[in-house]
Amino acid sequence: MLAAYAATTSPDDPLSALVVGERPAPEVPEGWARVRVRAASLNHHDVWSLRGVGLPAERLPMILGCDAAGLDDEGREVVVHAVIGDPDYRGDETMDPKRSLLSERYQGTLADEVVVPRRNLVPKPAALSLEEAACLPTAWLTAYRMLFTQSGLQPGSTVLVQGAGGGVATALIALGAAAGYRVWATSRDEAKRAKAIELGAAAAFESGARLPERVDAVMETVGAATWGHSVKSLKQGGTVVISGATSGPNPAATELNRIFFLQLRVVGSTMGTKEELERLMRFCEQTGVRPLVDSVMPLEDARDGFAKMAAGDLVGKVVFTRP
Amino acid sequence: MLAAYAATTSPDDPLSALVVGERPAPEVPEGWARVRVRAASLNHHDVWSLRGVGLPAERLPMILGCDAAGLDDEGREVVVHAVIGDPDYRGDETMDPKRSLLSERYQGTLADEVVVPRRNLVPKPAALSLEEAACLPTAWLTAYRMLFTQSGLQPGSTVLVQGAGGGVATALIALGAAAGYRVWATSRDEAKRAKAIELGAAAAFESGARLPERVDAVMETVGAATWGHSVKSLKQGGTVVISGATSGPNPAATELNRIFFLQLRVVGSTMGTKEELERLMRFCEQTGVRPLVDSVMPLEDARDGFAKMAAGDLVGKVVFTRP
Amino acid sequence: MLAAYAATTSPDDPLSALVVGERPAPEVPEGWARVRVRAASLNHHDVWSLRGVGLPAERLPMILGCDAAGLDDEGREVVVHAVIGDPDYRGDETMDPKRSLLSERYQGTLADEVVVPRRNLVPKPAALSLEEAACLPTAWLTAYRMLFTQSGLQPGSTVLVQGAGGGVATALIALGAAAGYRVWATSRDEAKRAKAIELGAAAAFESGARLPERVDAVMETVGAATWGHSVKSLKQGGTVVISGATSGPNPAATELNRIFFLQLRVVGSTMGTKEELERLMRFCEQTGVRPLVDSVMPLEDARDGFAKMAAGDLVGKVVFTRP
Amino acid sequence: MLAAYAATTSPDDPLSALVVGERPAPEVPEGWARVRVRAASLNHHDVWSLRGVGLPAERLPMILGCDAAGLDDEGREVVVHAVIGDPDYRGDETMDPKRSLLSERYQGTLADEVVVPRRNLVPKPAALSLEEAACLPTAWLTAYRMLFTQSGLQPGSTVLVQGAGGGVATALIALGAAAGYRVWATSRDEAKRAKAIELGAAAAFESGARLPERVDAVMETVGAATWGHSVKSLKQGGTVVISGATSGPNPAATELNRIFFLQLRVVGSTMGTKEELERLMRFCEQTGVRPLVDSVMPLEDARDGFAKMAAGDLVGKVVFTRP
Repeated sequence: MLAAYAATTSPDDPLSALVVGERPAPEVPEGWARVRVRAASLNHHDVWSLRGVGLPAERLPMILGCDAAGLDDEGREVVVHAVIGDPDYRGDETMDPKRSLLSERYQGTLADEVVVPRRNLVPKPAALSLEEAACLPTAWLTAYRMLFTQSGLQPGSTVLVQGAGGGVATALIALGAAAGYRVWATSRDEAKRAKAIELGAAAAFESGARLPERVDAVMETVGAATWGHSVKSLKQGGTVVISGATSGPNPAATELNRIFFLQLRVVGSTMGTKEELERLMRFCEQTGVRPLVDSVMPLEDARDGFAKMAAGDLVGKVVFTRP
Repeated sequence: MLAAYAATTSPDDPLSALVVGERPAPEVPEGWARVRVRAASLNHHDVWSLRGVGLPAERLPMILGCDAAGLDDEGREVVVHAVIGDPDYRGDETMDPKRSLLSERYQGTLADEVVVPRRNLVPKPAALSLEEAACLPTAWLTAYRMLFTQSGLQPGSTVLVQGAGGGVATALIALGAAAGYRVWATSRDEAKRAKAIELGAAAAFESGARLPERVDAVMETVGAATWGHSVKSLKQGGTVVISGATSGPNPAATELNRIFFLQLRVVGSTMGTKEELERLMRFCEQTGVRPLVDSVMPLEDARDGFAKMAAGDLVGKVVFTRP
Repeated sequence: MLAAYAATTSPDDPLSALVVGERPAPEVPEGWARVRVRAASLNHHDVWSLRGVGLPAERLPMILGCDAAGLDDEGREVVVHAVIGDPDYRGDETMDPKRSLLSERYQGTLADEVVVPRRNLVPKPAALSLEEAACLPTAWLTAYRMLFTQSGLQPGSTVLVQGAGGGVATALIALGAAAGYRVWATSRDEAKRAKAIELGAAAAFESGARLPERVDAVMETVGAATWGHSVKSLKQGGTVVISGATSGPNPAATELNRIFFLQLRVVGSTMGTKEELERLMRFCEQTGVRPLVDSVMPLEDARDGFAKMAAGDLVGKVVFTRP
Repeated sequence: MLAAYAATTSPDDPLSALVVGERPAPEVPEGWARVRVRAASLNHHDVWSLRGVGLPAERLPMILGCDAAGLDDEGREVVVHAVIGDPDYRGDETMDPKRSLLSERYQGTLADEVVVPRRNLVPKPAALSLEEAACLPTAWLTAYRMLFTQSGLQPGSTVLVQGAGGGVATALIALGAAAGYRVWATSRDEAKRAKAIELGAAAAFESGARLPERVDAVMETVGAATWGHSVKSLKQGGTVVISGATSGPNPAATELNRIFFLQLRVVGSTMGTKEELERLMRFCEQTGVRPLVDSVMPLEDARDGFAKMAAGDLVGKVVFTRP
């Protein structure tokens, strides 16, 4: 079958490690299910895999891709939940120490077929297209969990999203606005601030700007560069939810004094559960909010999509399709 | 000043106890503030007061009304929070055992002026008119707390609202839909079911109908008549939030077995806090959802408004205005 | 191997359905583990099984018993967690709709050997004997979850335990006192009230008695007979946790008015998770609290133990041992 | 009346700023109450006040002391809650931005009499002596809130207390052990580690030591020096509760990557509410745990007590008494 896979890895020239070509169709283990992929979307994670981050040589070749929507063996339209857990684990699956994402240990979604544990299939709501649904299971799910599970926010609260240009940040703005939060966003880049307003932000500010008033929560994916601003922007009892630190994990000042005296909370978050994915899709259905799609192209042209992502030349998601 | 007040009370003929006429302007106690009322809305509570429920003779005459928006002494547009607490109490103010609602112990809002503790003033967001804002502090605040503080629901969840015609139920449907819940409503009355759909419900059912699937939470204001259906409609771990029992407090079957075996939760709720009122108004501003107004009339015509409410001849709120 | 099992069921004469005799040793499915049972304790559940409750004829013969401690194939001392879940389920395992207790679908613990999913084995803390550990996984675990997961209580709070004589109620009193709650208990029976004080209750009252002050939470296992007293004994915002209704599920008065006006919570609870079992054992280790054991006897004498339980002639647990 | 007060402040020689002498007896404002102090305990806060930290010149002279127990005007034994809030504030009083501690804006407890808002009086349980009760309202209350309100821990969990020698840390060890947690403590000092074991810790380790296994929560009052160890000691989903940073607020590495990937929580905490103080006293009553008292002396000898504290020559609290 056709697949986009890492044949090798290359820290400096990730695209050189990518092959778009034939791979054997997967076997279906007991308790697992096969999905004929119709749409699969690209994440930064896929480029990092080509660089070898989280993908040691002994697992190669590895089909890339975490996100997909397609048909199961009964012909039902399904979305693939990307977190593959340990069979012996119970509890919140994002806390499972042995979990992995598709394309880390198990072959990914950028292919004609993907196999996953049966429980990882979620019915696709009719209101979403396969292309739209294929954009949700990674960045949007991460944003859903940050905003709706971890933040403790209630509708009508004010939330600050740092670094408005990123994939998770974009999802945070769109989801927060659709849920009735007052969303403020920051970016160093004027075009990204304008985009944030388009996505539903009530206001957008220069990075580090003094805000009109303190906020109930901050969504952090930037890390060191924005940490001080995040902590100083919070009300008494406010919360920073953090799911990434693209500018580094160690800010110049942690501000522990401010954290304890104002009784702030810092809440780490990563990925999401299958139930959160189900609610995310239902939420999109009910509110009409949809993931922003930059471009749709056949899987044969996957190299073009990877090139766009590596160049940072994207507004929204790249979706690969199969007939 | 002009006021609509209970001169006496009458269990059988509440309108006979109503006077629309002159009352002395109130003094302003230390730490309190005066509001020049521009808009005040009517609640069932006001008719119950005329019947003598919660209003003993020694407190008469009592100006009616819990809800108001107007101008403070500095000319700022404010909304009045209706819960008057004990000065020595801290914590969630709806748990204060000595709290009362305006018009129970302190003179109410259907007048040229009302005085309340300074902390009970909330700035009105510019996006809401005074008439709209005056509809929020009682039924809508009750619905906000049920849905967003007490239910434990997350966006994308499914919620059942029993008895779609009531004032709180109407607010629950509109708020839930605007926040991205899938709202299902029930009513015995076809017109009310149609209205529920108009307000944003995803589906409306006959009272007691078998639902397409079990729900995450039920909002109860009906009580005995719908209790069994509410309990049986819930998923494992689901929640009934209850803030009223218009059909009586003692259902034929409490269903304790189902409650413990499915680990259900029953959560009582009443009124809301000032912070919840602030978020409710911000939520209306961000989402564009607005209270449904049946009619707006000058306070001089208050008797007509009370008559409409007593006759049950209302779709939405009656608002009284002052110039 | 030797086992105590239901050869048939008898609603009226449960002991006639019990056989203490030979059964084939179990196979060990993939992912499961064998435990050589050293101690197993008896629950009312076992007598109900003999009556046919939850045990249809097609599952017979069924070895009884939910609770056990023993040795795994590596010779480690382990305790058996009794909740057997669906392999595809994630989340809180007590919410798994397909879960069962040992001896409902899978052969139970009153035997030389029992097999369970590997994840159901919990290391036994050295401070507990095998006999003590074998008393914890059902009634004590239920009490742990009610008191420490579901109640929302904090140390120093006051909690009322209704029906002080029962197995779960006994555990509630001992655990609550050891955790620094002020525990009040009720019973119709003076000897049981005296026993409650011995177990650590700060005070014991006649059933339905007016209490010195309102309490933060009530633990309910009695149901209809005590419900009204439970609801009326709670403070504003208080919680009833319920895990059984031995006197029936439908009290004369549900008291919904009181529930919503005082913002009470009713929280259903059943069994507990493996992590709760681990914490329960650690808690026993740290505080020195131990389950009350009525008698220890070899499994060969199981009929005597069942007879004591059927006669209600017990203070604490009956433990069966194997060499 | 006799009082120990700051006549001036001195950053370098705090004892030189202390006067033990006559001050006028306080007036009792409307809604406030007078307490005849029988026992009052010393905190580091008092020495910091003498250094001028949080005590500007315009508030001098200021009677020192946050903690007291004594008699109200009706002769009842009461404990003084030290957090003085804004009358217009509702909600959790430790979140009140205008709150202060006794001796910051209002005259403190090291005197014959102190006046506080009526709501700040808490009845003393009979089981505690006045001297014991006077040790609870500051450091012990802080520890109570960290451990029982903020940590999310359940009985039987494992908690690490950093810096076992401090006043709050000592209270954390004693309270945690009494509540059935497995308490691990760290200190650089062997004597303090031995003391931790005496207070109930299950084990004590060198600062920074590799622990036998990861813990559910860490209690932080040390800050920069222990931060890295705290974060690395936590399980998936674990919590750091922080109420101080005596070694500085800015650790070399914040470890945001670890925080988000393991979904850790950092929870700031400061002081406690009146209801928490009530439960703390009840908890001491029920469990028998008592604050450690280093020495009891008449208020006339207050200078000796301050000298001991300034010299760090204390194990437990210094209590001043009045006849």
